[in-house]
Formats: sequence, C-alpha cells, structure tokens
Amino acid sequence: MTRVTILAGGVGGAKFAKGVRSLPAGKLLDVTVIANTGDDLWLAGLRVCPDLDSIMYALGGANDTERGWGRAGESERVSGELTAYGVGWPWFTLGDLDLGTHIARTSMLRDGLPLTEVTERLAARWDLGVRLLPATDDEVDTHVEVTHPEGGIRTIHFEEWWVRHRAQLPARRFVQQGIADARVSPSASQAISEANVILVAPSNPVVSIGTMLAVPGVREALAAADAPVIGISPIIDGSPVRGMADACLDAVGVPATATGVARFYGARSGGGILDGWLVDLADSDSAAGLRAEGIACEAVPLWMTDDGATARMAEAALDLAIRLG
Amino acid sequence: MTRVTILAGGVGGAKFAKGVRSLPAGKLLDVTVIANTGDDLWLAGLRVCPDLDSIMYALGGANDTERGWGRAGESERVSGELTAYGVGWPWFTLGDLDLGTHIARTSMLRDGLPLTEVTERLAARWDLGVRLLPATDDEVDTHVEVTHPEGGIRTIHFEEWWVRHRAQLPARRFVQQGIADARVSPSASQAISEANVILVAPSNPVVSIGTMLAVPGVREALAAADAPVIGISPIIDGSPVRGMADACLDAVGVPATATGVARFYGARSGGGILDGWLVDLADSDSAAGLRAEGIACEAVPLWMTDDGATARMAEAALDLAIRLG
Repeated sequence: MTRVTILAGGVGGAKFAKGVRSLPAGKLLDVTVIANTGDDLWLAGLRVCPDLDSIMYALGGANDTERGWGRAGESERVSGELTAYGVGWPWFTLGDLDLGTHIARTSMLRDGLPLTEVTERLAARWDLGVRLLPATDDEVDTHVEVTHPEGGIRTIHFEEWWVRHRAQLPARRFVQQGIADARVSPSASQAISEANVILVAPSNPVVSIGTMLAVPGVREALAAADAPVIGISPIIDGSPVRGMADACLDAVGVPATATGVARFYGARSGGGILDGWLVDLADSDSAAGLRAEGIACEAVPLWMTDDGATARMAEAALDLAIRLG
Repeated sequence: MTRVTILAGGVGGAKFAKGVRSLPAGKLLDVTVIANTGDDLWLAGLRVCPDLDSIMYALGGANDTERGWGRAGESERVSGELTAYGVGWPWFTLGDLDLGTHIARTSMLRDGLPLTEVTERLAARWDLGVRLLPATDDEVDTHVEVTHPEGGIRTIHFEEWWVRHRAQLPARRFVQQGIADARVSPSASQAISEANVILVAPSNPVVSIGTMLAVPGVREALAAADAPVIGISPIIDGSPVRGMADACLDAVGVPATATGVARFYGARSGGGILDGWLVDLADSDSAAGLRAEGIACEAVPLWMTDDGATARMAEAALDLAIRLG
C-alpha cells in the first residue's frame, strides 16, 4: 500500500486528486488530501470552507461540473432571504445545498469540535475514497491589501478580492490573519510524515499552496518527510491552468511561468519543498535549468482535459516519485 | 392615538394581532405585540424563535395559511442536507425560506445584538404595521418533564414534546430553563407601562402567556400599568381554539375551560393580571361568577373564522377596555 499525501487548493486540487484516486486498483493507493483553509470565511454567521467543500463535492460526485464550482442542481432560495434581510454579501451567493454543509459545519464547530473532526464527519456522508484533512484547525483567513479605486489602501477578505473584484484590484500583498498563532493540524502533520509520496497539486501557488506552507509546522513537516515531494506546475506556457493565479503571483513578484513557480517553491535540498517538478510539454525548455538547481524536472502533458488525461498526469507524478524515492 | 399592547403566542396570537391591526383607521391604533420566546431553541447551531416568526410572517403576509404555520411557498432542500449530515432533528424540518430568517437572526445575535434589536431589524424587511418585541432578551427555553414511554422521567425541549410527541407524552411539569436570571426586555416593559390598553391574546395560557408572565418583571409591569388588561379566552366550550392547550393545562392542574383559564390568570385586583375577560357565547354562563371575582367578563363570538370575525372580537376587547379604563 502506497500512502500518497496531496497538498491541494480547491477546484484544481480536487480535479487532480480525482485523477490520483482513479489510478488502477493495482497501485493500491491510500490517499490523503490536505486542503488549504486560507480562503475560509465567516459569512452570515456561518463558517464557509471553499477549498474543503470543492474537494468534498468533487470527490463525492456532487459538484456542478458545468458551472465549475459548488453543488450540482443547486438553488438559491435561502440566499434570497439573506439578501432581503441585508445579511451576508449579495455578490457571494451561497446555494441552498451548499448552505446545508455550512450550517452543519458551523453547528459542530460551535459545539467545540476541531475542523479536522468536523471535516471527517461531513466527509463521512460521501464516498470520497480519500481522507480529507484541513491543513490547520486554526482560523487563518487570507486578506488582501489593495489600493482601492475610491482611494486609500484597504484590507479586504480574499474572497471579496477574488469573487467581487475578480482579482482586478491590484493586490499589494496577502495577509494571513491569525497565522502567527496557527499550527499545522496533528493529522496533516502525520499524513506528511508517514507518506510514501507527497504531491503538490497544480493549485494556486500563492493563496492555496503558499498559504498552507505559511502555516507553522507545514514546511517543517515537509522538510523532515521521508517521502519525495513532487509538484505539478499550475502554469502552462505562461498562463494559469485555471483561476487567476497570475494576479496572485504578480502581487508577490513571482513570474507566472512554470520555472517561476518552481523557484518560488524551491528545491528541498536548498531549503525549499520540491524534489521533483512536472511541467507541461510546452515548458520542456525549463527542465534542464531546474535540474541544475536540484529539482528533478520532467515535461509531460499537464492539461486536465478529462479524467484519463488527469490520471496519466498523476501517474507521471507517482513514477517520478518512485524514481526519486 | 390609542397605544395597544398585545401579549401573544405564535399562530393564534398572530391571527388576533392581525384582527387588531385591521380595525378601521379611525381608531388610530399604535399597536405593539410582545411575543413569547419560551418556545425558542438552538437547532443546528441556529436560533429559532417560532412565535416571533409566526407573528412576523403572518403580519408580513408571508405565512402559509393552508398549512397554518411557516412561510408560504416553502421548500426543504437545506433540511434534507442537514439530515444527510446527521445534524438537527429530522422530525423538526426547517424550511428554506424560514432558515433564511434563522441564519440572519443567528448572525446578528452572534454579533452581540440583543434579541429585541435583532427582531426589529428582521421586522424592518416586512410591512408589519405593528411593533414586534420579544418578552425578554434572555434565553428562557421551555422544557417538559415527561414520563418517558421507555421508562424513567426525562426532561425534553418543549418543541420535542410538542412537535415530535404531539403533546401525547403526559407532562409532569414545565421548566423554563434560565428563567431565574432572565428579565423582561426594557422595550417590552415600556410597552406595557405606556399602553392605553393591554390585550392578552387567545394563546396557550401555560406555555405562551404563562411563560411570559413567569419572566421576572412582566407581572410587575402589568400590575403597575395604568391601562386595563383584557384577556381573550383561548378555550371555547371546553376545547382549545387551536393547538393542544388542554394538554398543557392538564399538566398544571387547570381545568380546560374559559373560567379555568380566567382563574389561572386571576383578577388584577387580587394579584392576578386581568381586569376584563372575553369568553365565547357558548361560555356565557361563566360570566356572572367571574364578575363576582373581580373580572369584568363578557360573552362575544370568539371563533377567529375570518378576518372580519377576528376584527369584531378585537373591537369587543377594545370596547371593554374603554369601559373599564
């Protein structure tokens, strides 16, 4: 049994995790997905965890594949009421089915359960085929310092920047509120240290993977792990695979290229996190340079166009790990 | 301008308040409804206030008149999710539109607003035509001590007894948890002391009106009020107008008759709360006896069969108040 631990953001991470899960049974994989919680927020008194839920819905087969996020067959009757009462954000609509998850989660959190156990209870309803863990039980909500169009510098929640402003307001920097007092969850730390292979999904390197790495204990666990750490580039030929990762990379001064992200993560031998790095065939030129910097880089097709393509990409990551392990 | 203050339970109280509100504009009534909060509960991490909401929906024209409770055009998608997650009470289904109210309320309560202000903000969405107040800002949730069919004496939330067991488990007594530390809300106290007429709606005398009277400060405010206090019997010819008030009266040893309830409330001159009492024509025999006990009793039609009948009944209560005032 090969224990595979994946660090993942939301929708892209879910897609990748699904690819890993779909590998032939002969592989006998025991998969744990550690999800980013930096996008989490309190909204209308409810705790919303977008990345955990994207992964849960996608692996549970309940996600809306046409829209690309949320639950399939969703409706928005409750949100209409909240707007009528002037509660919540009218531009951040919570679906009725999705609200069921948030209410259940908030109820358990208010009862004093840590997010790890809450996530386990919520996931128990679905047939995920993987273990799903938050990176931390502590609240570390990402905020963005922006130059506001109406003047002045303001700090807004990441989701306000991302959803309301479509990442169009230039970001000065990202602030993980509460990160100094946060700590990697014991389960996530264990999943990293006991893994045979660690995969970094092609998720947003700044606000998904970057936020997880900023949680005290995560980098330390990766540094001490026996398993090789293989990352998959979220940038293909200078463009993000999905989402608006380039706007985030801009804000932290990292070039939006496969090489730029690899250097941002860094070689584990040099204090970074990567042993290996998969880039798309379009970025094969960058492989040699990265190898010289201590990152085993390989070029394979990285577009997650369908389940088969994603599975082949996951297999390439595992193969690279076996060669490095 | 005549200031009318009504003490009311849920659906029956709402119906009566609507009758008062419908009186001809020539009456120039300024109506305040003080609602029972004894049925309130925390469910799935949300604060549910059945009586406040019944009144708000009915006066706001959003209630389900066919079903007799909740919102019109209701659906139950979120509740299905909560049940799938094992959260909440499967036998106490919260509608989607109704949940909007509970989420909005809980959000404001968690922000630290007292229930009086929360209720005002929620009510601002609707065109109630009255001021709606909770009897207290404190949590006083009614519990019922029952002899459980599986043996032993248990204490369950009132709503579990009422909704799940349809009041069929014999109640030994009602316990208002937290009542010793509760206090009438300043606004409710003021609405009683500044009223020109005080009406006690034909609501459940034990768990609706009785719970309000048990809140420290309510009886004192009624005793000190300048206005006459007129009650309307919730029992007609030995049967409750609606609901299962007889089961509650049984539990406290009060006969389920118009006279029994009047004596349970008592004459204000004798330390009770009533100056006047309306009974149905079917109970006109009881009028003389009650008059001798210091309660001005009149028999009028009390069936709230339609808005017109309810308005005439409300008018009769006001007329009696004027004669006593």
